[in-house]
Amino acid sequence: MARVVVDVMLKPEILDPQGQAVQRALPRLGFEGVSDVRQGKRFELEVEGPVDGDALARIHELAETFLANTVIEDFTVRVQDADGNERPVEAGTDAASEGAVA
Amino acid sequence: MARVVVDVMLKPEILDPQGQAVQRALPRLGFEGVSDVRQGKRFELEVEGPVDGDALARIHELAETFLANTVIEDFTVRVQDADGNERPVEAGTDAASEGAVA
Repeated sequence: MARVVVDVMLKPEILDPQGQAVQRALPRLGFEGVSDVRQGKRFELEVEGPVDGDALARIHELAETFLANTVIEDFTVRVQDADGNERPVEAGTDAASEGAVA
Repeated sequence: MARVVVDVMLKPEILDPQGQAVQRALPRLGFEGVSDVRQGKRFELEVEGPVDGDALARIHELAETFLANTVIEDFTVRVQDADGNERPVEAGTDAASEGAVA
């Protein structure tokens, strides 16, 4: 069982009122030095079987068709390792196969 | 300028109807092999200045008091490197200082 994370964020050119509200509130709350905040969604998928290139290709398709609205949102697929580090994987690249997790 | 990511997810013992709805829809849409889905929030903070132990401690405090409802939610602070890899950092540990990004 491996954990694959899909992050869905509004595209940079799309206004993000939620993130702006957070960013504007921070100085009032005593937190300086944060110049921008963007808020998005995070999906944690528990995947059965090996996370190989094929599985990642299916997850990319799933994210593109179902989790993200690609007109206004970008998504990133990341594989989480045992230490909690998350490495982005592109669809159909060698990186996907390099990152195979049993 | 460095990017710090705060992930906010419902605690494992809290029911996640959004994630369940996604998980149940997947087989209908032709995606098999995903045994669980959890949906949460992702905040991308653009931090001015160095992301050292002090900055990360402030971001932990910010996440705990403002971004997450720690009664029902867990949060993770991650530092994103130039390759897009995201490494979790604990508050007040050496990991935070090891991970200092200028």
